[in-house]
This record gives sequence, structure tokens and C-alpha cells, in this order.
Amino acid sequence: MAKAWHLMQRPKGKPTHDDVALKEIELAPLEDGMVHVRNHWLSVDPYMRARMDDTDSYFDAFKLGQPMDGGAVGEIIASKADGFEVGDKVLSFAGWRDEAVIPAAGIHKLPDLGVDPYHFLANLGLTGGTAWFGLMDVAEAKAGDVVFVSAAAGAVGSAVVQIAKAKGMTVIGSAGGADKCAWVKSLGADACVDYKNGSLLKNLKAALGDVGAKGIDVYFDNVGREHLDAAFAIAEQEARFAECGMIDGYNHEAPYGFKYIAYIIGKRLQLKGFIYTDYQPRMGEFYAAMGPMIASGEVQSRETVMEGLDSTFDAFLGLFSGANTGKMLVKL
Amino acid sequence: MAKAWHLMQRPKGKPTHDDVALKEIELAPLEDGMVHVRNHWLSVDPYMRARMDDTDSYFDAFKLGQPMDGGAVGEIIASKADGFEVGDKVLSFAGWRDEAVIPAAGIHKLPDLGVDPYHFLANLGLTGGTAWFGLMDVAEAKAGDVVFVSAAAGAVGSAVVQIAKAKGMTVIGSAGGADKCAWVKSLGADACVDYKNGSLLKNLKAALGDVGAKGIDVYFDNVGREHLDAAFAIAEQEARFAECGMIDGYNHEAPYGFKYIAYIIGKRLQLKGFIYTDYQPRMGEFYAAMGPMIASGEVQSRETVMEGLDSTFDAFLGLFSGANTGKMLVKL
Repeated sequence: MAKAWHLMQRPKGKPTHDDVALKEIELAPLEDGMVHVRNHWLSVDPYMRARMDDTDSYFDAFKLGQPMDGGAVGEIIASKADGFEVGDKVLSFAGWRDEAVIPAAGIHKLPDLGVDPYHFLANLGLTGGTAWFGLMDVAEAKAGDVVFVSAAAGAVGSAVVQIAKAKGMTVIGSAGGADKCAWVKSLGADACVDYKNGSLLKNLKAALGDVGAKGIDVYFDNVGREHLDAAFAIAEQEARFAECGMIDGYNHEAPYGFKYIAYIIGKRLQLKGFIYTDYQPRMGEFYAAMGPMIASGEVQSRETVMEGLDSTFDAFLGLFSGANTGKMLVKL
Repeated sequence: MAKAWHLMQRPKGKPTHDDVALKEIELAPLEDGMVHVRNHWLSVDPYMRARMDDTDSYFDAFKLGQPMDGGAVGEIIASKADGFEVGDKVLSFAGWRDEAVIPAAGIHKLPDLGVDPYHFLANLGLTGGTAWFGLMDVAEAKAGDVVFVSAAAGAVGSAVVQIAKAKGMTVIGSAGGADKCAWVKSLGADACVDYKNGSLLKNLKAALGDVGAKGIDVYFDNVGREHLDAAFAIAEQEARFAECGMIDGYNHEAPYGFKYIAYIIGKRLQLKGFIYTDYQPRMGEFYAAMGPMIASGEVQSRETVMEGLDSTFDAFLGLFSGANTGKMLVKL
């Protein structure tokens, strides 16, 4: 019997196990145009926290008492859809469960880029795509720019670091703890600030000195709040901010008081929010650029993998406690 | 003997008369390439508060013990510069004083647009130019857009309202008090919210209903803080924010806690800071668009005029207590 994680109540602040339940589900009958998929990999991502609230934003809110969904890579085990064969590897949105019967129209057959399929949930999917389009398109980053990226040991951040280095930029990352910072530097970052150790702003200014820069041209924001405020403070004139995530804000009740936000005016800053799914029409361009960098090892990934459907919610919670280095995945 | 306002100490929070002094000054000798100007009109503007702090931003900080400066319109009373004759009306930066001997290279002869010269300190200068370029260029506003402008009874805001209406947009303003709101509506605004009367956000949502809109496409920000936060909350997808001023923040010590800032991501918002002086190369385009609108009365202005050099600092302080409706000027 197939199983899926259901949202049972809307979390107050940080989610807990009381908010969800893993329950058996009835699969839909396999009708014409549909496929039966068995998932091999599930993705858990910070944006899912926002979907647990009762507010539709760029994604619909999860429905109470219903299975949640999200990115998943699996294999077709039965098909009544033209062009989809048993054994095809596919990317779908039928995550948070082990099996699904779904319309073939909503799934994607994975192109053969010579890489392991789980990459399509990571550097060839949401995380790498977010890094690529956010850095190159939203922030218009170019060779020679000084780039600051927060949560640089995270899935998106670690991809940003490597893409930026591959494109000839100077990179300052931030991460929580010496181990994560060491990993960020091993990916090529010119400096990494441990935000758990001392004043973030002071340490960022020191890092700027270390890399011989006066300020940042680009900020890739994964966390918001104090990091965003510090980025206002160290921005160069006309710096561009790609606003990707404010994970730090999802589970806080008290709003953050920004000290340096008025620099938006004095420094003529540009902030742009963006959402990966808007770039679906440009995936071909992305695969062409990113596929070879992954296959050659120029862009590496590290995954934190938890095993089994039972562990999915703990994997999700781990995103908010810093349990992951790189992309958090669940292997079924 | 000429006189000028000097900065004697840097204000803590709101400036007071203890921070400044009106003192006699020695004029420079009139050498080749210089002109002697007698000012008729002085401009006081919110950005001057930032220049009183010891931090250079887009403008240099005022120097302690020295005369301050700013926009002024006057008349040449002696000249040793080619192309500048006694009687010429000029725009200079030798404000906060009655007379100055300055290089002709730094002043502009006023073009004849058939309007009173003081307009070059208002709708044909800093304030109107800020409104025009902020709305049309920075926010890329176009016919049919729903525009929210804060401090809509202020110098810049009232120009934004009228330009937006002339260009076929729907306009919601905010202002402090029923009288100011009535004036904003008389300028053509479709709605005006009195920010001193009840919940700003709730009243803005009601105003949206009144004008038959679900959200705003453009926010012209003159004040920051609660207004900016409310704009995040009522923004449509892909709304553009022209960040012009955060006057509300200049004299506050406590940073503002933003509740809705994460909408930058979910709504794909774009915020851009800008500074009027960056548009100096495009003044010809601006005069061509704005001059006829002023001469014809399509864009009206209201000035709050204080008389005499002695009143200049009180005029400046009035900017922060809401004493002005429209552009604050000092007539000498």
C-alpha cells in the first residue's frame, strides 16, 4: 500500500511532528494518459515551510488533511501514456510519498546528461537552477564582480559559489560553523564568514579586506534578516541583490529591524525577488550550461541523504536546524 | 555683509537650533571665470538631514563649522565669466546663504520655459525631476498601472500624483491629515489614505477596493518603514518599487521591523534606489516633457514659502513635522 505524508495542522513557528502524519493512500486508477511512478528520491526544501501556512503565495498552500507534494525523481512502473515507457526515469512533483499515479502531462523524462538522476533534484533542478538563474540573470553577475552569498554551505549557496568561481568572480560565503566554512572554501570561495562566531558585519568587513575588495557588487540572499542588513551595509554603489530566500524568517515570529535599509537609496541598490519555476521555459539553456560543469566535476555537489520515506519529515526539519551540508535528499 | 547657515555640531536624531548658526561670511574675490550671485529662492530638502551626519553617502557630509549648501535660484549681480551677464537668472548649489561668489562652471542658466524661476527648485528641479525619473524610468510605470505614492502631499509626491494621472495611471496617495488628503485628491488622485487615522494597511486595502484594484503595480516610496512594509503587503506580482526616500527613518533611532519583506521573493518584487543627480545628462528630455505640463497647468504645484534667510532653518525643520504642503521654499 502506498504511503504519503499529510499535513494535519498548520504549524505555529517551527513545524513539529504533531503537524504531520505518514498515512496510507489509495492510488488513482491508471487511466489513459497516466503513469504509475515509483519514487527513488524525494526533495525537501525550505519553500515548503511557506506552503504549510494558510496563505497562497507563488505556490498554493498545502491542504489540511491531504498529502503534501514536492519534487521527486522516480521510475515508471506502469504506463497508459504515449511516449512514456516502463523503466523511464522521470522528474515529477509527486513528492512526500513513495508511489503515485499521475497524468503524464505533469512529469518530465530526464534528459541524458551523463549524470546520476538525483542531480535533477539538486544542481540540475531546483537548487542548481535557482543558483544559476539567480546569479546570472537576476543579479546580472559578471566576471570580476565581488559576490556575497549567504547559506553558502546550503544546496543553492554551494552551487552559487562554484558557478561564480567558474565565471571568474570573487566569492565571499557565509555559513554556520568552522566545518561548513572549510567546505565552502574547498569549493573555491575566496573567503567564508562563520555567522555563528562573532559579529557578522564585522567579520564580513574583515573578509572584504582579505579578498582585497571594498564592497560587494552582488548579494545572493538565501536567508534575509541580519545577513540582508549586513549586505546593505557592505554593498558597493549599484550593487544587485538576488532575493532568493529568507529562510531565517520563516520560523521567526518577531520581524527583524533593519538598520541599513536606507542604503537602498544612497547606494542605488537593486533588489529583485525571483522564483525558479518562472525559468522553466529556459531549462534547455540551463542544462546546456550546467550539465557539462557537473559531468566534468567543475561544479560539485554534496548531498545530505536520509534513508526511507519514514525519515522525510526529519529531513525537512533538518533544513531549519542546519543539519544539511548541500542539498537535503531522501532516498527511498 | 553676506550671511550663511553653518553646521556647528552633528544632530542626534532630530536637528535643533543648537546644531546650526547663521553667521556672516567673507565672499571670495571675483576672479576670472567666476560670478557673483544674489539668491532669490532657497531650497530645503529632506536629504540635507543625511548630510548633517558624519557619513558620506551619495552626497558629501556637511563640514562642521562651515556653511551648508543646497539648491538656490538667483540672479547674477557681477560676472567675470564668458556667457554670463548681470541679470541672468541662474540655478546654483550655493544655498543656505544670501550671496555667493562662485565658479560659473558650477551653475546653470535657466532655460526660458515660460514659468516662474522658483519652479527650477521644485517641479522643474530636484522635486519634479525626482518624481518624473523615479516614476517613468526607475519604476517603469505605464498607463493602466495602479500606483501608490507615500507623502503624496509632499513636494515630490504631489508631482508624482499629477504625472501619473497625466499618463493614465490609477493613483492612491497617502498623507497625514484630512486637509492634505483633500488636496491630494484635488490633484487628481483616485484615493488618498490618511496615515494618521487608523491602520495604514487596512485603510490602503480599503482604498484598493474603492479604486477597483486588487493590488499595486508601482510603489513610489518617499518614507520607508511602515509605508514600505504595507506596500510589500499590497503589491501585485512583479510590482516595481522606486525607492526615493526614507524620510521617516532619518530621525528615528530604532530600526523598523518589517513584517512583509519576504514578499519580495514570493511576489517577485523589484526595488531600485535612485538619486536625482544621476539623471543630469537627461535634463533636456525632462524639461521637454515637464515644462509644457507646468506652463499649461496640467501639473500644478503648491509651495510652502517662508520669508527671509533667518527662517531657513525653521523651514528645514518643518519638513520633519509635516509643516509643508508641497515644496518648501525660502524667499529672500
